[in-house]
Amino acid sequence: MKNRQWRVARYPDGPITPDCFAYREEPVPEPDAGRALVRQLFLSLDPTNRVWLSPFDTYLPQLHIGEVMRGLGLGIVERSCTAEFKAGDLVYGFLGWQDYALIAPEDVLRVERHPAVPLDAYAGSLTMIGLTAYFGMNDVGGLKAGDNVLVSGAAGATGSLAGQIAKMQGARVIGIAGGAEKCKRVVEEFGFDGVIDYKNADVAASVAQYFPKGIDLFFDNVGGSILAAAMNNMAYNGRLVICGAISQYEDGGPGAWQVSYVNVILRRLTIRGFIVFDYYGPKGTKAREAMMKLENWYVEGKLHAASHIVEGLERAPEAVSLIFTGGNQGKLLIKVSS
Amino acid sequence: MKNRQWRVARYPDGPITPDCFAYREEPVPEPDAGRALVRQLFLSLDPTNRVWLSPFDTYLPQLHIGEVMRGLGLGIVERSCTAEFKAGDLVYGFLGWQDYALIAPEDVLRVERHPAVPLDAYAGSLTMIGLTAYFGMNDVGGLKAGDNVLVSGAAGATGSLAGQIAKMQGARVIGIAGGAEKCKRVVEEFGFDGVIDYKNADVAASVAQYFPKGIDLFFDNVGGSILAAAMNNMAYNGRLVICGAISQYEDGGPGAWQVSYVNVILRRLTIRGFIVFDYYGPKGTKAREAMMKLENWYVEGKLHAASHIVEGLERAPEAVSLIFTGGNQGKLLIKVSS
Repeated sequence: MKNRQWRVARYPDGPITPDCFAYREEPVPEPDAGRALVRQLFLSLDPTNRVWLSPFDTYLPQLHIGEVMRGLGLGIVERSCTAEFKAGDLVYGFLGWQDYALIAPEDVLRVERHPAVPLDAYAGSLTMIGLTAYFGMNDVGGLKAGDNVLVSGAAGATGSLAGQIAKMQGARVIGIAGGAEKCKRVVEEFGFDGVIDYKNADVAASVAQYFPKGIDLFFDNVGGSILAAAMNNMAYNGRLVICGAISQYEDGGPGAWQVSYVNVILRRLTIRGFIVFDYYGPKGTKAREAMMKLENWYVEGKLHAASHIVEGLERAPEAVSLIFTGGNQGKLLIKVSS
Repeated sequence: MKNRQWRVARYPDGPITPDCFAYREEPVPEPDAGRALVRQLFLSLDPTNRVWLSPFDTYLPQLHIGEVMRGLGLGIVERSCTAEFKAGDLVYGFLGWQDYALIAPEDVLRVERHPAVPLDAYAGSLTMIGLTAYFGMNDVGGLKAGDNVLVSGAAGATGSLAGQIAKMQGARVIGIAGGAEKCKRVVEEFGFDGVIDYKNADVAASVAQYFPKGIDLFFDNVGGSILAAAMNNMAYNGRLVICGAISQYEDGGPGAWQVSYVNVILRRLTIRGFIVFDYYGPKGTKAREAMMKLENWYVEGKLHAASHIVEGLERAPEAVSLIFTGGNQGKLLIKVSS
């Protein structure tokens, strides 16, 4: 019994490359009082992994060279030294890029599996990713029925859920995605009212065409020229939810993260950034309520969430690049164990 | 009896220059049914005049070449063909760069003069400028007692009032202004807790020093490098109120209006633009209530508002430049008539 780990070997300059990580084997740790040993089932790979590999504090403390790579994952309790968990319980939280993690109750969300839901859905779509989409649209974006909504990264894990959540609440939703295959899924699988293929269309012109009265709510995962196109087509009193900016994470140049804000005044816009963890509420109450909603929608067939599963922890360092090249179809997960 | 006017002759490329305006004399117009003839007492010159001289629609419709230059002003009703006004009434609104204007009741705010308040205070400080500061801090910025507040353009008409309004409501307020004389006024006359002289200090370092726990609320009138310095020193969940951006109005280059928004996500910021007119409320009720508050504070000596008065409508085209060169001390007004 050993604990395979990927540790941070160096910070990337641009894209994450496999040599940013170093492989290591450790003994499986023993839980001490108040903690439990968790075996990881699915490790979630996300755009924000690139942010975590910054050589400075971001919205979480800096990861130092030599530390186990930070990662969210779904796991099963193997041994528990806390009354709050027993062997066999499912938990979701920061398990890291490794087979086993020691966790305290306050570190994780408890997952009660619904029999009709596949396990992998709890490794992202119905946990952090779903909550990001849910809180982003509602608490941050103030979504209202009838809103004209634009979502970038619409074929991605968060964007696809964000759009569906907005649709279910009475909004008209247009997505932006890259390539014919992804665009087809955005409309046919995720049920958006329309889609713009940023690889094959003039995004600015298409956005203007889809939003003759302007965008009420823009949910952005991408940034860059896509944010600029939205900014030029916002409705009066429009809101921009800044969920992410994947086009900017690898760019350390002086033009990175630059946006023109002239329309913020002229059109009375509100731009708001957020981190999903801030919306969990005391003791994670709000998160649990929202997870129940997401699960219900999923079971009723109203929420479509696909996983793109890569087998084996050993492949995490290369698999994470799929996110930045657009190579994954659905929520990217590493299957760590069964 | 003639009506002297300044009409738009050309759009400025960079700064406003006197040749942007053409002088003309017209007969004084006769009010038709439902309107009143107003003689202008004080014409308000404001940073936003540069925005109005754009060759496209902004937050107000485009001003075309040949039209009377748009301007806010305080006037007195001379003849009325509406039951809502009688001769001698004071009104404030878009009177234009001219001696006389015809107005409808819905175009203007009625001003009830308090005997202890000089007339010029109603031409800006206790009307549009005061309302901008008041609604910007409260309705847009969500000011709370105990907030650490930064105000740019702190010696300016809006900034000086915004800071005083925040102080009165229990905030700690630091200002940014240009030059020793203005900085002295910010602290001694307007009562700010501290001031940064952007002409003689490292703004970024000074902001960091004044806000060890970060800025809760930034009220920006300036933009550019001052906005960037604030953005780098915002507290978590901080709010940025974009009231204006005087450093950007004259700059048509590709770098204009650019701001880095990386901290919008990392620090969960809210950026909000606004136009004061949106906050007047139905029939201007909210504006009237706020004006009463401002007037009370002024009469009680709690709100300091100075005017910089230039005599004569003929000097408007050259006087407006004072705003952009920092040449005025206090709210810039043209005294049009007595």
